[in-house]
Amino acid sequence: MTGIHRTTEKNLMVFSGRAHPALSEEVAANLGISLVPTQAYDFANSETYVRFDESVRGCDAFVIQSHVAPVNQWIMEHLIMVDALKRGSAKRITVVLPFFGYARQDKKHRGREPISARLIADMYKTAGADRLLAVDLHTAQIQGFFDGPVDHLMATPILTGYVKEKYGDQPLAVVSPDAGRIKVAEWWSNKLAGAPLAFIHKTRDITRPNESVANRVVGEVEGRLCILVDDMIDSGGTICHAADALMEEGARGVVIAATHPIFSGPAVERLRDSGAQEVVVTNTLPLSPEAEQLEKITQLSIAPLISRAIKEVFEDGSVTSMFEGRA
Amino acid sequence: MTGIHRTTEKNLMVFSGRAHPALSEEVAANLGISLVPTQAYDFANSETYVRFDESVRGCDAFVIQSHVAPVNQWIMEHLIMVDALKRGSAKRITVVLPFFGYARQDKKHRGREPISARLIADMYKTAGADRLLAVDLHTAQIQGFFDGPVDHLMATPILTGYVKEKYGDQPLAVVSPDAGRIKVAEWWSNKLAGAPLAFIHKTRDITRPNESVANRVVGEVEGRLCILVDDMIDSGGTICHAADALMEEGARGVVIAATHPIFSGPAVERLRDSGAQEVVVTNTLPLSPEAEQLEKITQLSIAPLISRAIKEVFEDGSVTSMFEGRA
Amino acid sequence: MTGIHRTTEKNLMVFSGRAHPALSEEVAANLGISLVPTQAYDFANSETYVRFDESVRGCDAFVIQSHVAPVNQWIMEHLIMVDALKRGSAKRITVVLPFFGYARQDKKHRGREPISARLIADMYKTAGADRLLAVDLHTAQIQGFFDGPVDHLMATPILTGYVKEKYGDQPLAVVSPDAGRIKVAEWWSNKLAGAPLAFIHKTRDITRPNESVANRVVGEVEGRLCILVDDMIDSGGTICHAADALMEEGARGVVIAATHPIFSGPAVERLRDSGAQEVVVTNTLPLSPEAEQLEKITQLSIAPLISRAIKEVFEDGSVTSMFEGRA
Amino acid sequence: MTGIHRTTEKNLMVFSGRAHPALSEEVAANLGISLVPTQAYDFANSETYVRFDESVRGCDAFVIQSHVAPVNQWIMEHLIMVDALKRGSAKRITVVLPFFGYARQDKKHRGREPISARLIADMYKTAGADRLLAVDLHTAQIQGFFDGPVDHLMATPILTGYVKEKYGDQPLAVVSPDAGRIKVAEWWSNKLAGAPLAFIHKTRDITRPNESVANRVVGEVEGRLCILVDDMIDSGGTICHAADALMEEGARGVVIAATHPIFSGPAVERLRDSGAQEVVVTNTLPLSPEAEQLEKITQLSIAPLISRAIKEVFEDGSVTSMFEGRA
Amino acid sequence: MTGIHRTTEKNLMVFSGRAHPALSEEVAANLGISLVPTQAYDFANSETYVRFDESVRGCDAFVIQSHVAPVNQWIMEHLIMVDALKRGSAKRITVVLPFFGYARQDKKHRGREPISARLIADMYKTAGADRLLAVDLHTAQIQGFFDGPVDHLMATPILTGYVKEKYGDQPLAVVSPDAGRIKVAEWWSNKLAGAPLAFIHKTRDITRPNESVANRVVGEVEGRLCILVDDMIDSGGTICHAADALMEEGARGVVIAATHPIFSGPAVERLRDSGAQEVVVTNTLPLSPEAEQLEKITQLSIAPLISRAIKEVFEDGSVTSMFEGRA
Amino acid sequence: MTGIHRTTEKNLMVFSGRAHPALSEEVAANLGISLVPTQAYDFANSETYVRFDESVRGCDAFVIQSHVAPVNQWIMEHLIMVDALKRGSAKRITVVLPFFGYARQDKKHRGREPISARLIADMYKTAGADRLLAVDLHTAQIQGFFDGPVDHLMATPILTGYVKEKYGDQPLAVVSPDAGRIKVAEWWSNKLAGAPLAFIHKTRDITRPNESVANRVVGEVEGRLCILVDDMIDSGGTICHAADALMEEGARGVVIAATHPIFSGPAVERLRDSGAQEVVVTNTLPLSPEAEQLEKITQLSIAPLISRAIKEVFEDGSVTSMFEGRA
Repeated sequence: MTGIHRTTEKNLMVFSGRAHPALSEEVAANLGISLVPTQAYDFANSETYVRFDESVRGCDAFVIQSHVAPVNQWIMEHLIMVDALKRGSAKRITVVLPFFGYARQDKKHRGREPISARLIADMYKTAGADRLLAVDLHTAQIQGFFDGPVDHLMATPILTGYVKEKYGDQPLAVVSPDAGRIKVAEWWSNKLAGAPLAFIHKTRDITRPNESVANRVVGEVEGRLCILVDDMIDSGGTICHAADALMEEGARGVVIAATHPIFSGPAVERLRDSGAQEVVVTNTLPLSPEAEQLEKITQLSIAPLISRAIKEVFEDGSVTSMFEGRA
Repeated sequence: MTGIHRTTEKNLMVFSGRAHPALSEEVAANLGISLVPTQAYDFANSETYVRFDESVRGCDAFVIQSHVAPVNQWIMEHLIMVDALKRGSAKRITVVLPFFGYARQDKKHRGREPISARLIADMYKTAGADRLLAVDLHTAQIQGFFDGPVDHLMATPILTGYVKEKYGDQPLAVVSPDAGRIKVAEWWSNKLAGAPLAFIHKTRDITRPNESVANRVVGEVEGRLCILVDDMIDSGGTICHAADALMEEGARGVVIAATHPIFSGPAVERLRDSGAQEVVVTNTLPLSPEAEQLEKITQLSIAPLISRAIKEVFEDGSVTSMFEGRA
Repeated sequence: MTGIHRTTEKNLMVFSGRAHPALSEEVAANLGISLVPTQAYDFANSETYVRFDESVRGCDAFVIQSHVAPVNQWIMEHLIMVDALKRGSAKRITVVLPFFGYARQDKKHRGREPISARLIADMYKTAGADRLLAVDLHTAQIQGFFDGPVDHLMATPILTGYVKEKYGDQPLAVVSPDAGRIKVAEWWSNKLAGAPLAFIHKTRDITRPNESVANRVVGEVEGRLCILVDDMIDSGGTICHAADALMEEGARGVVIAATHPIFSGPAVERLRDSGAQEVVVTNTLPLSPEAEQLEKITQLSIAPLISRAIKEVFEDGSVTSMFEGRA
Repeated sequence: MTGIHRTTEKNLMVFSGRAHPALSEEVAANLGISLVPTQAYDFANSETYVRFDESVRGCDAFVIQSHVAPVNQWIMEHLIMVDALKRGSAKRITVVLPFFGYARQDKKHRGREPISARLIADMYKTAGADRLLAVDLHTAQIQGFFDGPVDHLMATPILTGYVKEKYGDQPLAVVSPDAGRIKVAEWWSNKLAGAPLAFIHKTRDITRPNESVANRVVGEVEGRLCILVDDMIDSGGTICHAADALMEEGARGVVIAATHPIFSGPAVERLRDSGAQEVVVTNTLPLSPEAEQLEKITQLSIAPLISRAIKEVFEDGSVTSMFEGRA
Repeated sequence: MTGIHRTTEKNLMVFSGRAHPALSEEVAANLGISLVPTQAYDFANSETYVRFDESVRGCDAFVIQSHVAPVNQWIMEHLIMVDALKRGSAKRITVVLPFFGYARQDKKHRGREPISARLIADMYKTAGADRLLAVDLHTAQIQGFFDGPVDHLMATPILTGYVKEKYGDQPLAVVSPDAGRIKVAEWWSNKLAGAPLAFIHKTRDITRPNESVANRVVGEVEGRLCILVDDMIDSGGTICHAADALMEEGARGVVIAATHPIFSGPAVERLRDSGAQEVVVTNTLPLSPEAEQLEKITQLSIAPLISRAIKEVFEDGSVTSMFEGRA
Repeated sequence: MTGIHRTTEKNLMVFSGRAHPALSEEVAANLGISLVPTQAYDFANSETYVRFDESVRGCDAFVIQSHVAPVNQWIMEHLIMVDALKRGSAKRITVVLPFFGYARQDKKHRGREPISARLIADMYKTAGADRLLAVDLHTAQIQGFFDGPVDHLMATPILTGYVKEKYGDQPLAVVSPDAGRIKVAEWWSNKLAGAPLAFIHKTRDITRPNESVANRVVGEVEGRLCILVDDMIDSGGTICHAADALMEEGARGVVIAATHPIFSGPAVERLRDSGAQEVVVTNTLPLSPEAEQLEKITQLSIAPLISRAIKEVFEDGSVTSMFEGRA
């Protein structure tokens, strides 16, 4: 006899970096398993060390890390985990990115700039990732930055569902905080019974060039509850100014909805002081204690979405069917 | 003696495929040189054959091909030219794409779709291209699809210059034909003394769901000459409907401005019948005889832009400086 | 528990481009399955669009496209299909090429030419193909152009079987239409009981250099039924001149046998007018209506061969054993 | 129906080059299977030819070749076997290297040198190897030269077990023959109840620079049985001089232990003449007839180690657990 | 005329990340040039942004970044700088690494660990680096981790020169703090007139296994000034214990010499409290204010070494000749 | 000032392996330079070591090695030289292959065979070669195996020139020793004033199948001096049998002409005993002393061809023009 025959088995294992363990644990719990026990710490000089406590040979690995600040730290840890999985003979490695850092550096705005989002995608490939699974990428083109399959999950149905349920009986308007995100707002409008669209146009005061910037509201918002939508809230300046501009234009109220609560620097303070009555986000990123105490912030979980997608990927089901065909 | 020393020389050579030779010749003429004599024809069974009549060894090659219909034909010819240059020992190969086909397939709109724009970028790389030089990419993220330097030229200054000169003394509005392109309109607005912005929002009639679509104008256009801007005009349906909607909203007139005149199928007829008074485009693509006869179409040359960029690239100058730092 | 265990399953799916759907359907029918429902069409500006209507996640994909004219169109469509499969998470992608276009551009005949056959092989790799399955490649070296496994199917046994059955009782000669294909003729000779070999040598008339070309028959053909063999018939000039030269040399008759019926331009007319009594081909390429009406053309199906090979590949059987060890 | 479903099977097959067939056969026998019948021979002009007599489609291939002299010959044969497996559609290819040649060329000692160990690793990758399995690499960093998983087996426990069993009741010292290998000696010391460490320091005679070299023993060895340890014995000069130096320093005796018995040129003669009483090695390399006759050489088999590792790899078990977590 | 001819020029430009600007400025000053003005800062959410203020087209770029803590931060910044240079059309990119982080993770010590040093090397390649230039790599094998040329500079001559000058008239011993670095100590011994070698052997107390560790000095040190050498000092525990052990063994004094002053956590305190009389390091890493105030620390500059190497690389001279042929 | 400007210089350096130094020296002498002094030897265990004695930084390297037996030995040495050049920062590396070993393994003749010629081409690429320069490849398709430029030199004009000069006044026939090489014979025929073509057809005796093979001459040879042409002579069996068959058919005489004199095993003896009156070869391979003594062997030098090609490559001239456009 010149060979040994066996039926092939596959084994789903879920790994988590240190950036946002609560989400990873929720995902694993939804799948009815535990995270693979992992040692991860930094040496005295800040170099990161990772080792898995169980054999990963032949497994179908899903490695979750959200790009929480300090972003560079957690990206590097993520890459090192992928390298360890590759060298440990994992069969397939899917990198799970609830929030994909550097997504806004997806093109050269000016000469001699990097395209860091492509660099990040390439580095995951170099480290050994076979596939990516990401939530609400800043621009859908980032899927094309990775040389391999990308499963792109949409958190927006979770947000629209919540908003529709809570505010659906009021006269609504959907507002984009700047000219570049109106496409997303248009999608919201379709989900909210064709609510009218508006956006905020930042203009220079022509009489005093290069001096001040005004936020002009383009579209009808008077007397309407404005759903101000974006994919992420970073330091919150743009979106809070937009909320204020809407109130000045006679909006009945403002609800902010965004997938990724980055909430850098003064964001929580700004949101607290702004005219917005509610801020709806998901848990692709963890909230700071300060943010958790702000009552107007509502955080919805995307763990069910991620765990279902992982299951579909593992079992060769369809992720597309989770979103009515959209990708 | 163990070596022979020489001063290194570089040699700029410009090549052209068969898709749009008039533009290539204009570019070469601006540079004061001739195109490299090239045999290119199709065999009886439609396979494409290419051969250069001069040695290309060691040259700094710029290979121009615009993705005119039939797009697949000219992309393949372009790739074959690059392969021949690589195997003929060209030192550096820059692929020049006045119009980059498949640019709208830059993401998966739905599951199980390709991302053809990335595929095209990868195929140029595989064939041997070192760099790309493209004009007004549909989305700037496409720069990130290529694994190497991309010089991204902007034709919009040529268009805004023309419009400002001709219509600058009238009350203007800048209008985007759909929600996804308002960013470009915003750029126009800045160039046109802060002219107000508007866009066309396609909505479903709520009383008759899934049945008809209305074009709602969002923003103020009444009494203004509307500059309706886009990167390309394909079959012209969207933009002509937008022009009509603007006229209905009381616009003083409509001028359409776009970089790439694809003008597929009924485009010329539609433009002729639409309320737009002028259609300003560049020559990144050739006009059909029918289009050339339509008086309201004005075609501006981008050859000076491309030839200047080639010169900067060849001489290690700065392309960025041609656009005030923007990329 | 840190993992979920499952037995691994594999799923054979067959896809077809638009170039030659009849063959793909025959292959699928032989396998007892349907082709995966696929949307494929060209946009107004001729860009090709493809989308699969079923989930392809984890499947063992076989994507059939024969390089019918317009070749560039169908190669691009094929590449785009492969890209969509890769991004849709197909597990393994086998590109099935009943006729491999550009196979004759497999070397540089002169300086500054491309090697397009290698370029095509590389582009399939870039798009995401894991393996190729091809029928009667113009030269066997093309197997070496692809960086991965190539299953090379031979249609010649189908042709020799037919010829032996029908003409085996007559005195035969096997003839190559030019010096470069005698190896194939030699293989035929072995299959046909050692029938003598001949070939057509194209010579210049020495007394009138550079002016005319004569076809000289090298080998004994008088009184024999000549089986004139080649891998493909393109515009038919060479093979029809060869048939005529054989008749002039006293051949009892001529039967042409070739795998790939390209039949470009005047081919059908030439075959009709030539002295050949029968032209035996396979259906790696579809016949034009004109060719289908020419009675002397006999078309044998290679679908059983391809479907059997797909089955062997899917079930880890042996393709080599289908051809007595030859590859 | 659009697909055919099957349970996936995997099939372990073991292949052997011609360098050291006895070891391969022992490994296969331990696994209860035969080596895959393989034709391998050299053509008249010394080019190597390889072909497998059974289908390898879909198999999990382990290809064993130890880098016996002539090293270049057997490396090339190994690479050619891997290429044939790749093109024959093996599913996964693990290169098994009982002795990894060129391992000592793992860095540039001086400028303009190659790093041949990296080159070898890259060539296996290029040929199609998915993974490596090696025994006692000269430096562990070589694992990092391969772009993929490397299973690194340690033969030292076999050697320490033997030594402990036979000499454990005597006062021992562990000695490294030069300064660069003391880490290995330290590992031995731990296994041998903390036996004291020593090493041989090669010094120049300061009074006669660049002329002669003395071997100075650093550490206490007097009255102790010295276990002189290294990873390999090549021509034996260094280790035999070390043995003599130890005897001169008053050692009670010397036992040499090393994994790889290269035994080039005068090695066997030197070992015979040296003061060492026993030389313990494994069979990662075959012994010459001359070496087999030298009684003081003891050869232990590493076949059980390799066959167990192959089994773990095939069945997705853990190789790490074979060595208490060390890699 | 079909081409434009020019003499090729090259342009050396030096760039610096934010980790250790003082060293970069010193290097640039030695070359008689300024660093290229560069914007580098972190966005609110900690993503890093980089842009160069001058055109980098066609330049020969040297990008200096030492891996100071937080290491992950500065590695990512470095990679982003390389990406920006690549996309900005730099002709050649040399990554200059005075201290190469993660160098100690150059192999798997145990199963399921990463080989982070290889990952780092691969990421520089992916980002676009053509070559590396590094100082005193932890192990020379790391040169083999990069797929391209690595210029490996040695700082040890600077250290040995200083020590010889200051202490050359005393009876010396060269000591390695552990078994793995004796090779370096051997090199020092050669430079210091054959001073005797010793090393510290960490042993378990056999009577109380797994409980305590003793530092045993192997070699003669009594009455000698011990030069305790290593490539780097991290938290200082090992080297300070070694210094104390040497004093206990009757050393006349201890001088510590190492290239890279990482000085993590308690290092400075430990050095202050240890018996070492002087600690000689270079400026591959910056000193903390605390370290700068410790008088027994002497910092020698490696800027002249780096700037000379950059010059040799730029002018196609020889780096090897700077080190008497060693690499 | 932020940069240093220099005019770029290039430096041609020629390197030689140990396989056929006489040819390399002749090539260098033709160029008016010396070979770069190189250390190359085998260690005791047969591992090959290479180091260059001069700096190769920035040079335009041409590395000559002909694949003399033992082929594997010299291929490996060649690869190691390329690796050392790459790591030594050579600017461009051209591998010069007067005879390309394994060229006959350019396809799978049967299943489960390697395609070793592609493997060799890939290994040169992996080691760092930018380009190949080869003489009379067994099949021109091998050019397509290398991913980069291949300069293919033809030695046949040297051979035809010699034959025409010496035998041009006699009635000639050009004969191919088997069916696969008639294309080459056809080329000879064109050069020799249209001399008639013939080839040797190996047939099985139909009455005794699988038993014996007869050589049948196809074509007219009676009374003519037969020029028996091939690309190489290996063990000489085929060609000597062909010569004998021609004599039996009434040929006036036989002259054998081939580029590559491999002359394995009994070749020289066979040639001596055969009916051929002269054997014309080049020096792409060295002759054994035995062969040098056989008077009927004439060896023509290809060194002028190679040195001229190197010069054209170095100076960006045209290699194609050396062969009237053929490649």
